Amino acid sequence: MRAVQLRAYDARPESISVVEAPIPRPGPGQVLVRVAASPINPSDQMFIRGLYGFKKPLPAIPGFEGSGTVLEAGSGMMGRFLKGRRVACATAAPDIAGGMWAEYLVTSAQLCVPLSRQVDMEQGATMLVNPLTAWALMEEARLGRHRAVVQTAAASALGRMLVRLGQRFSIPVINVVRRVEQAELLRKMGAEYVFNTGDADFDASLDDLCHRLGATIGFDAVAGEMSARVLRAQPRGSRLLVYGALSLEASQLDPASLIFEGKRVEGFWLTAWLRRKSMLSQLQVSRQVQRLLAGDLKTQIQARLPLEEAARGLEQYAANMTGGKILLMPSRAAGE
Amino acid sequence: MRAVQLRAYDARPESISVVEAPIPRPGPGQVLVRVAASPINPSDQMFIRGLYGFKKPLPAIPGFEGSGTVLEAGSGMMGRFLKGRRVACATAAPDIAGGMWAEYLVTSAQLCVPLSRQVDMEQGATMLVNPLTAWALMEEARLGRHRAVVQTAAASALGRMLVRLGQRFSIPVINVVRRVEQAELLRKMGAEYVFNTGDADFDASLDDLCHRLGATIGFDAVAGEMSARVLRAQPRGSRLLVYGALSLEASQLDPASLIFEGKRVEGFWLTAWLRRKSMLSQLQVSRQVQRLLAGDLKTQIQARLPLEEAARGLEQYAANMTGGKILLMPSRAAGE
Repeated sequence: MRAVQLRAYDARPESISVVEAPIPRPGPGQVLVRVAASPINPSDQMFIRGLYGFKKPLPAIPGFEGSGTVLEAGSGMMGRFLKGRRVACATAAPDIAGGMWAEYLVTSAQLCVPLSRQVDMEQGATMLVNPLTAWALMEEARLGRHRAVVQTAAASALGRMLVRLGQRFSIPVINVVRRVEQAELLRKMGAEYVFNTGDADFDASLDDLCHRLGATIGFDAVAGEMSARVLRAQPRGSRLLVYGALSLEASQLDPASLIFEGKRVEGFWLTAWLRRKSMLSQLQVSRQVQRLLAGDLKTQIQARLPLEEAARGLEQYAANMTGGKILLMPSRAAGE
Repeated sequence: MRAVQLRAYDARPESISVVEAPIPRPGPGQVLVRVAASPINPSDQMFIRGLYGFKKPLPAIPGFEGSGTVLEAGSGMMGRFLKGRRVACATAAPDIAGGMWAEYLVTSAQLCVPLSRQVDMEQGATMLVNPLTAWALMEEARLGRHRAVVQTAAASALGRMLVRLGQRFSIPVINVVRRVEQAELLRKMGAEYVFNTGDADFDASLDDLCHRLGATIGFDAVAGEMSARVLRAQPRGSRLLVYGALSLEASQLDPASLIFEGKRVEGFWLTAWLRRKSMLSQLQVSRQVQRLLAGDLKTQIQARLPLEEAARGLEQYAANMTGGKILLMPSRAAGE
């Protein structure tokens, strides 16, 4: 099979190329998937630069999510159930050897979600990292009966999905961004509460609104100083879920927020969340998410490229991350 | 009454003096206490310098814990129960106006714990901030069925109490200190696992032992970079409780520890812990703690001073914090 190969965790295009590789075989609890499409995500950018939370042994095949068809299954009920089905799947775990930027891939059956008839391979390819994470985070807010949500990196694809889910479930979402254009983008889509860290009265007005609306749960994809600023603004007893670290810095946390205000900080990782779910509740959630893929949770696609153009795709995505996802399509030949 | 008065949150001795002040009256849920003794604690040092988690309106009376006799009670069952009794009490809350460095004090009945006959006013005066906190932290470890504990600032009075409680309950305690003398002090008292942050292989060997013993709960009084180093060393799914910030820095936390390893960080504050407890379970716990005040939870006393020498006491304590507590004794007159 053809597969994108990463030979070094540096940012150099020559460390990435397409090679011929053997088709992997599924072990117990695993499935073999013929890949239809796989996006370039910020987490892939981080992984390729060696800045993600873990590394895989080199040479490695990148690509943390995508869609495809399950051709074979190792032992296990979930795998047998999935055989022959179209699925969305994830490989973002240190114990999964393969990656999605290849014609075939072996992953854990637990990290595959069957696609409904109305969902095509392109929307399916981008269903987990953004739509399902947005759903899972909003589920935390709903199950915990939090009156409101505060989120950072609010103009990201995932952040905008949270805005729409907040509208759907009537949970106010307080949005924090770092640039004026991002604030405008959010206001245009009807976001009511938007704060720019550059504003002079940022901390005071964020504090005021978080207390007024009761934003006792926060979602942070930035880390660094941002974590402390949001946690400080939240009311007594709040939770902050860190799910990304766009700043590439350690989360800073004010000990007084933790000690005297009973606040706590946790991480959120979709892979762990999926693995905790029973097969049944995973199917239920994925059905609900798929119903929204054409609407609230729709992903915009800016380009479709063959595997051979992965390096160019990475460049193009880095230059325009809000213009939509770039999909790698392993079945397309170069120059097609 | 005579009371120590703090007029500015600076480190200057002239901002502290003894004044004549009216004896306060207890409101609903409050008690009036005649103070017997009150120690100088690190939290008092921080409060006086304006570095504690909250400030009280100036001029303020310092002193966060102490012992005394309840003379009067406002409405409320707990207060009526305490009237006439010897108590340990705390004032470390922004909503408590008074402080212990005075002849009399009004505090919340919820922040008073009756003293058993065998506990004298001196041991009672230092019973909450260190012994009860140590007990409460170890209770978290026991109720959560954590196999082992890792703690920072392990050579502090409270840290040493945790070492002894670990021995008593057969829970291994992994101790982290920042100086060679502290490591020796701990080894002399029989601590088995002691790490100095200055050691070349500190992070690797801490990681190894935390995983081997299963130190899934951590107690951190230092904050700053220390929080990240301990959290990183702990096994997957661990909790870190921050209860102090001796470094005066924000806790740094590795987002990867939070996200990919499911670790979480909370604060611990004795005042909130006491207020969460029912009256009955508070009495039960305090009885258990008092039985240990002569042994595992004994506090060493280095000096007893009248209120008039508070400023000198603060200096003396700053110069020798491991030599034992300095008690202020409001009933002693100056020069006695």
